[in-house]
Order: sequence, then C-alpha cells, then structure tokens
Amino acid sequence: MKIALIQINPIVGDFEYNLDKISSAYSKAVELGAELTVFPELALSGYPPEDLLLKPHFTDSAYAALRKLAASVIQVPAVVGFPSKKEGGCYNSLALLAHGDIAEVYDKHVLPNYGVFDERRYFKSGSKAVSAEINGFSVAFTICEDIWQLDEIAGHLEALPHPDLILNISASPFHKGKIEQRKQILANAARTLGSPLAYCNLVGGQDELVFDGRSMFVDTDGKVVTKAAAFDEDICIADLTRDGLTAVTPRAAQPEDVSLEVFHAVTTGTRDYIRKNGFKKAVVGLSGGIDSAVVAAVAAEALGPENVIGVTMPSQFNSAQTRSDAKVLADNLGIAFHTIPIGDTLNSFHTELLQIDGWNDKTTAYENLQARIRGTLLMSLSNQFGWLVLTTGNKSETAVGYSTLYGDTAGGFAVIKDVPKTLVYKIARRFNELKGREIIPESTITRPPSAELRTDQKDSDSLPDYDLLDGIIEGYVEKDMSAAELVNAGFDAELVQRVIRLVDMNEYKRRQCPPGVKITPKAFGRDRRMPITNRYKTRI
Amino acid sequence: MKIALIQINPIVGDFEYNLDKISSAYSKAVELGAELTVFPELALSGYPPEDLLLKPHFTDSAYAALRKLAASVIQVPAVVGFPSKKEGGCYNSLALLAHGDIAEVYDKHVLPNYGVFDERRYFKSGSKAVSAEINGFSVAFTICEDIWQLDEIAGHLEALPHPDLILNISASPFHKGKIEQRKQILANAARTLGSPLAYCNLVGGQDELVFDGRSMFVDTDGKVVTKAAAFDEDICIADLTRDGLTAVTPRAAQPEDVSLEVFHAVTTGTRDYIRKNGFKKAVVGLSGGIDSAVVAAVAAEALGPENVIGVTMPSQFNSAQTRSDAKVLADNLGIAFHTIPIGDTLNSFHTELLQIDGWNDKTTAYENLQARIRGTLLMSLSNQFGWLVLTTGNKSETAVGYSTLYGDTAGGFAVIKDVPKTLVYKIARRFNELKGREIIPESTITRPPSAELRTDQKDSDSLPDYDLLDGIIEGYVEKDMSAAELVNAGFDAELVQRVIRLVDMNEYKRRQCPPGVKITPKAFGRDRRMPITNRYKTRI
Repeated sequence: MKIALIQINPIVGDFEYNLDKISSAYSKAVELGAELTVFPELALSGYPPEDLLLKPHFTDSAYAALRKLAASVIQVPAVVGFPSKKEGGCYNSLALLAHGDIAEVYDKHVLPNYGVFDERRYFKSGSKAVSAEINGFSVAFTICEDIWQLDEIAGHLEALPHPDLILNISASPFHKGKIEQRKQILANAARTLGSPLAYCNLVGGQDELVFDGRSMFVDTDGKVVTKAAAFDEDICIADLTRDGLTAVTPRAAQPEDVSLEVFHAVTTGTRDYIRKNGFKKAVVGLSGGIDSAVVAAVAAEALGPENVIGVTMPSQFNSAQTRSDAKVLADNLGIAFHTIPIGDTLNSFHTELLQIDGWNDKTTAYENLQARIRGTLLMSLSNQFGWLVLTTGNKSETAVGYSTLYGDTAGGFAVIKDVPKTLVYKIARRFNELKGREIIPESTITRPPSAELRTDQKDSDSLPDYDLLDGIIEGYVEKDMSAAELVNAGFDAELVQRVIRLVDMNEYKRRQCPPGVKITPKAFGRDRRMPITNRYKTRI
Repeated sequence: MKIALIQINPIVGDFEYNLDKISSAYSKAVELGAELTVFPELALSGYPPEDLLLKPHFTDSAYAALRKLAASVIQVPAVVGFPSKKEGGCYNSLALLAHGDIAEVYDKHVLPNYGVFDERRYFKSGSKAVSAEINGFSVAFTICEDIWQLDEIAGHLEALPHPDLILNISASPFHKGKIEQRKQILANAARTLGSPLAYCNLVGGQDELVFDGRSMFVDTDGKVVTKAAAFDEDICIADLTRDGLTAVTPRAAQPEDVSLEVFHAVTTGTRDYIRKNGFKKAVVGLSGGIDSAVVAAVAAEALGPENVIGVTMPSQFNSAQTRSDAKVLADNLGIAFHTIPIGDTLNSFHTELLQIDGWNDKTTAYENLQARIRGTLLMSLSNQFGWLVLTTGNKSETAVGYSTLYGDTAGGFAVIKDVPKTLVYKIARRFNELKGREIIPESTITRPPSAELRTDQKDSDSLPDYDLLDGIIEGYVEKDMSAAELVNAGFDAELVQRVIRLVDMNEYKRRQCPPGVKITPKAFGRDRRMPITNRYKTRI
C-alpha cells in the first residue's frame, strides 16, 4: 500500500482555504499513486486555534468542513486532523475518510499542557484506541504527543490487534535540536510497539511557532526510510508491504547545519506571518549593525527584495562607517533604501522637554528618545503605506532588556527575538556563504557592536561578552537553572547575579514586544509565562 | 472554637515579605482570641506564581519558608497555602501547622485550567481527602476550585467522618458579578455537604488580577454569618460550636454598587502594580476627556495626589475647552500639572517624512503620529524621573483597536483597559458623588467624546454609539456569541459584522498593550488567548 504523508501549510481559522489546499494535495497524491493519504494534526483548522476552540460556532464550522471534505474523498482513503465537538467536550481528533464518508474517528489521548501547549484548556482526553483495516493492512492511529508519552498509550494499543502500521499525525513546532529528539522518539516508538511508523507533521508559521514538516517513515527497527522537506509543503510516499516499508519518493534535502536551519525557520516564520496577515511589504530600520542586517536578509529571502524597504535614520552619533554599511547592505540585497535624519526632531523634543525641571541630554532617557523617534518614523511609514515593520532585537538583548520600548522594539514582527547574538553572527556568515558573496558587509560582522545612541558607545560598556551572556541566558531562561547552579557551572558569581537581575526586571518590556519565531527550546512568550510583578530572587 | 480568616496581600515570589506578613497577622489574630488561623491559597508564594513553579529552586525556597513558618506556629494552629514539590510533581497544597511542626498536608483536587488559570501546567491533582481534629472539631480541607466542582470531590469527602467544618482557602480573582456567583457556590457547598463553611480568599493586585478578599463564614443552611472587607487586608472571626457558627467580628462594609466596586478594584490593582514593582509616582497624559480623567482619579486615590503627575500635550486640534478641563481636573485632584505642546515636534516629523513620496498630513498616519509624540514625551519623563506611565484606553477602544500603538497605548499599566466606555461614565459620576463635589468637570462627562487628532473629529465618526458597541463586545468577546446570535439578539447585522471584524483584526495591537486590571468575566490577556494570525469569520 502506497502511503502519502502530505505536509501542508494551512491558515488558522480559514476552513475554505484549508479545504482547498487539502483537496488539491489529495488529488496530486492520488496522481502520484497514493493508496492512503495522510494530513497533519488539526490540518482542517490550522494549529493552534487557541481560544477559537471555545466558540461553539467555530467547532460547528470545523465539522461542516470535515463533512464537505469527506464527501469528496472517493478514490482512496484520507486521514485528517480536526477539532471535534461532542457531548461533554471538545477533542483533538483524527478522521479516517473513505468512500465519501467518515469511516472512523480517533481522539488524542495525551494532551500536552506545557511549554507553548495549552491543550487541556480546550480538549478532553480520548480513552479508546482505534485502528482500521485499510487495503488489507491494520493501521493504528495516534496523534502527536501520544507517542511522546508511550507509557500512557501502550496499554490502550495492546487492546488492538497488532498493527501493521502506526500512523501519527502531528503539529510539532520547531526548535533547534528538535529533529534529533523527534527521530529518537519515533524510532523508540516503532521499536517498542514493533510496527513501522508513518509520521506526518505540519509545516509553516503561525504567530510565534514554525512547524518544520520533515514528515517521515520509520521502519520497525527505528531506521528512517524516507523523509519530506524541511519548512516546505511536500508529499512523501513509501510503500508498505508485509516485509515493511520501502521509499517511493527520495529523502528530501535537509538543512546542513544549525545556522542554516535557523535561517530557514525564521524566514518561514516571517514570510507566513506577513502573508497570512495580509501584508505584502515590510520595512526595516537599518543601523549598519549586524542585527538589522540579518533581519533585512531574512526579509529579502522571505518576501523578495522588491518587497523590502530599508530605512536608515542617522543622528550625530552614527559613524560614517555604519551609515555606509547600511547603504551597501541595501544595495547588495537589492532592497529599496531611504534616509531620514532624526537630528531636528530630536532637538525639537529636547527643547520641549527642557520645560520640565530636571530634563537633560546626559542620561539614557535621551538615548531612548532617539530610539523612539526612529520607531515613530517607521510606524508612520507603516501606517501610511501598509508596510509591516520588522524589529531587529535578538534574544540576548530581549533577555536583558537592552532595547527601548516603543523604540527599536516597535513593530509587527520580531524576526530574531529568539536568536541569541552569538548565533546571529553565525547566521550572517552562513548567509554570505550561501549566497556566495559578501552581501552582509564584513565590517558589519567584525565591528564591535554599538547602539550608537551616544558618543563612542559600545555594547560592551553595558553588557558582558555575548559568549558569556548567551551562556547564562541559556542556563537561566531555557534550563531554569538557579544562580548557584550557574556559578557551579563556571560562570562568575557577580555576573550571574547581574544578568539574572536584568532578565527578571525586564519581563514588563518583553510583554509589550511583538511576536517572533521560537527557535530555542524555551522562547520568551507563551513558552515562558513569568509574572511581571515578581520579587523572587535565586541566591548563590 | 474561634476561627480567624486572615486575608492577606502577599507579593509573588517574596517569601521573606510574605512570611513576615503571615507571622504578624497570626500574632494579631491570636491576640484577638483566635483558636485557629487560616490564610489563603498559596499565601506563602503569592498567586499565581506562574512559571516560577517550574524552577526547582523556587519550590525548594517555598518549602524552606513553610518549615520556618511552622517552627513559629506554637500558640494555636494555622492553615496556609503553599506550592509543594514532591516525587513526581508539584501540588497546590495546604498545610496545617501546629505545635511548631507540619501536622497535615492536603493537595488540591480540582485544578482550574480555563480563563486566566493554567493550573494543570504546574500541578498534579491530589487524590486523598484530608481532615483533622482541631480543638475537638473535625475540619475537612478544600482549596478554591474544589468546591466549585462539588461533583468531583463529593466522593472523596464521603470517605471522611462527617466534618464539623469545611475549610476552603482560595485565590479567587475579582470580576464584576463574581461575588454573587461565589456566594451561591459557597451556600450550595455548605448545604450539599451539610456542614458550615469557612472561606478565606486572597486580597490585592497581581499583574492583571485583583483578588477582592471578602472572606466569609457560611452556615449549614447557606447563610452568610459574617464577612471580611472587600479589596483590603482584614481578619474575620467567627465562633464554631456544636450549634453552628456565630459572628465574632461584624460584617465589614461592602461596595454599594457596581461602579464603586469596579472603582475599588482598579484602584487596588493600580496601587499594587505600582508599589509591588517598586515605583512611587505615576504620570498620566490628560486630554480633557473622560478616560484620562477617570485614570487620573484612580491614580490619585491609589497613590495619593502628591504622587501623580498630569501632563497635557496640546496640538492645534485640541479645543480651548478640553485644555481647560484638563487643568481644572488636575487642580481638583490636587495633582501636579505640566503642559508640553507638540506642534513643533509634529512639524519636524512631518517635514522629514515629506522626503518619502506619498507621505501627507491627510490620513490616519498623521493622526497616529500625534499620539506617538505624546507617548514618546510621557516615556521620556518616565525614563528620566522614574514615573510609571498610566495609559487611558478603555475596553471599548481596546476591543476595536481605536488607539495608536506606541501612542496612547504606551505605558506601564492600563488602568481601565477592561472597563467598557459606558461603565467609565458611570464611574466618573460615582467618583464625584463619593467625593461630594464635581472633581471630574461636568463638561468632561457630557462633551461628545473625541480623540482630537484632526479638526472637528468625534468618536462617533468612526464608532457606533457606545451603548451598542459595548453590547456587541460583551456578546462577542465575553460570551463567545456568533454573528448570527448577536443579530438574533437584536443588533444590526452590518454593525455586528463591522465590530467583529475590528475586534478580530486588532488582536496584534492588544498583544503589545500594557497589562491592566481584569474586571469583567473575560478580559483581554491571559483570559482570552486568540491567535493574531486568524482568518476565521463567523457568518450571519
């Protein structure tokens, strides 16, 4: 039996669009010889629909869409994920469609309620194992987390006849390193359950999440038989016989390293956020620095250079070199470029503020003012021309609050908000390598980073080396390590205390930042829900 | 047995502060003759500690604090809520402390995971009913949601000897109307279980939540015996005999109507957000309109007028009347008042932006620019002087996005973000009544509302009557009604479609707004988790 894993990129809530997409991919897979077609978890509604699931009219619409889809599934069976409202609750379900009807429904057992997941807010847990005889093969159904918590479903599965295939439909979000973890989980499930496994994952960006696809077939011994593309829609086919699985479509090319993988992830997330929200063009403030260079490169890759506008907004504190780098970058990328100096507006604000006793131009308030003038200029262009503003803050800055709220944080999407500064550098070099030339100027990569908000300012005046900073942030934010554990891991005690204090006290700032792509195991956002009002201190 | 319900206002994560507060309130209750003292749910850590609970060092610190507290509880027993980490998971627990030690621990059974609650993200569900013999009375323990889902715990409680008292410790957040619902739940629990009930609720603000206290004793027949203060720390005592409960402390005064209740709620939330985050003073942009007037009144009430700064930032579009009203209000409240005109800065921005083809002063981009100049000025004062900026948007505006991101939404706390415009008017009148004079000028209350961002602008140019708007928002946002249901309820079809579209498309804006006090059954924030990327449309 030829099985097609069809990883699609749906839009949350757009049943019409998703139905069309499923139908046309179904036809294509049938043309390619598929005898069973498989779509991802909640493919019909998009994932995660969040509180849309609390609206009875939403789940009614999902069911109507499913019935419509079922009526069109005639040639070969299809498996598709949908939210199913029943007496007493809603379930995260999978339907087997065949002969123009709904043949079977399986409800997800294990509901993740950690990290970015809130599934127990919406769903009840299914309690019945379900399998079906398809073309003479017994196929057992699972949904995503079910096979990540094998203990919890193994008992249920034992009640079934031994399956010839375990099917798993997923909406498994990307973070760097996740693919290795996922392969182990799948291999372990196949070996433990003693059946080959077909895994169909969602693809595309949805707010802060990117689904990376990479659907795959795994044989009973845990080996990957064939695999779909990363970050793209794809159809991956294998043939199931009594002897196991053999690849029909070849293994798709995969990103060769973490820098490239993350570059693809943020590009996918940025493209989908912009397109799915109805925007065509994006604008980026270009400082001549590394962060805005990488964001502009991602934007050009995501939208095409003709849809990206770079704006540089110099003051007296910007060096000739950074101004020139901004222009060179824009030319290299082939994006539009404008210059709007901020000096006169800065003076005008300053003059008005001098009416208030105690105002002066010697403190960070004056630095923040410059950043806010720039944010206001970009937002004015956004409002006038319908360009979405991309912000340029990285995870290191976001963690310690090295940014101006309503200044450099002002915008619709924060492309690299979960990318640590050390990785931003690697991505810049990898991007130039990928393009075969120095698109991001070498001087942008090698110059010591600076916000250029006062004379001779350097990031290193306020922040530790980014190697150290990123190490502490990874430990404290992503691994929930205590101060004592970080010091035991070799970080300087005073530095640990300082960074932790900055991370804690800047929660208010992060709460008002735009969304951006999650690429680490724990991103700021739904993934890490800290109170703003919080006096907890971890001691050494 | 004299039982003291001690409703305290802890600070999330500040074990030292909370321990001190509990200890001194304990001593005071013992002086008042208490033979059993009761503190709220998670009183030791504050509620909700959110992802702090995922840090092992946090739960270790909580346990250390509990042991320290236990050692000091010698005279009479104390019941206190704390997060308890055990093998295999964390529980939302209650400890009975007596004779310097931990005598009993009960783990909450029913974990709310809806609305603002995420308890299944953190806690495992307890499975054992616990009661204790205290001064010859059998006392059964419950925590908050346990008695809201009586079906789920009734079976467990039946395993115990019939209790002489049901104790419930809670952290039940305020919304208008909640107190009636709570009384019914408590009365129903007492009657169904056939025992008198002592209910101890948390008090104070924590980010978007306000806990209103109003701890109470309810007799077996469901009648309230006595009740603690609303929105304030208090000790409420009743005497338990074989004949039931009798009041020792009299019933505390309660807010007489919804306007006053909501005024107290937002005042409490504002005061605690500011104070617990280490601020002393707040600044408000005064437009002469009703929203900023009510916010300034709340701020003056919360912090004292000496800690509030009003700033008016007029342009050519502001009328003499609104400018005068702003000044009169500031004088009436006794707060500081500054004027910073924005005309020159607006011209400077406009001149620079004219370099970009297509920029002009005829669109909303030019209106937004004015709002952003004001936001930038207030933030400059905030950065320079350490004043927290209070924003003035109400729920009606927040719902339909009638605001400028980084303009009037810029600030640390959004005092009335969950208060519909129609209720803002009522609160203004109620405030004047409370103070016995026209502090908020009558012209501010009666003038048709306007953003004054262009000549002769009125809210009614862009928005429907606030009566209608608030009705549709309540139905669509708070009750998850469909477009068809709203039309059936009597709203105009075209208006319904328009308002729903505005609510849906402005999720991105709400996501970047500061936190503010929840006062309705469903507030924007943790309470309503909608995707930004969302193409779902409810049809008529």
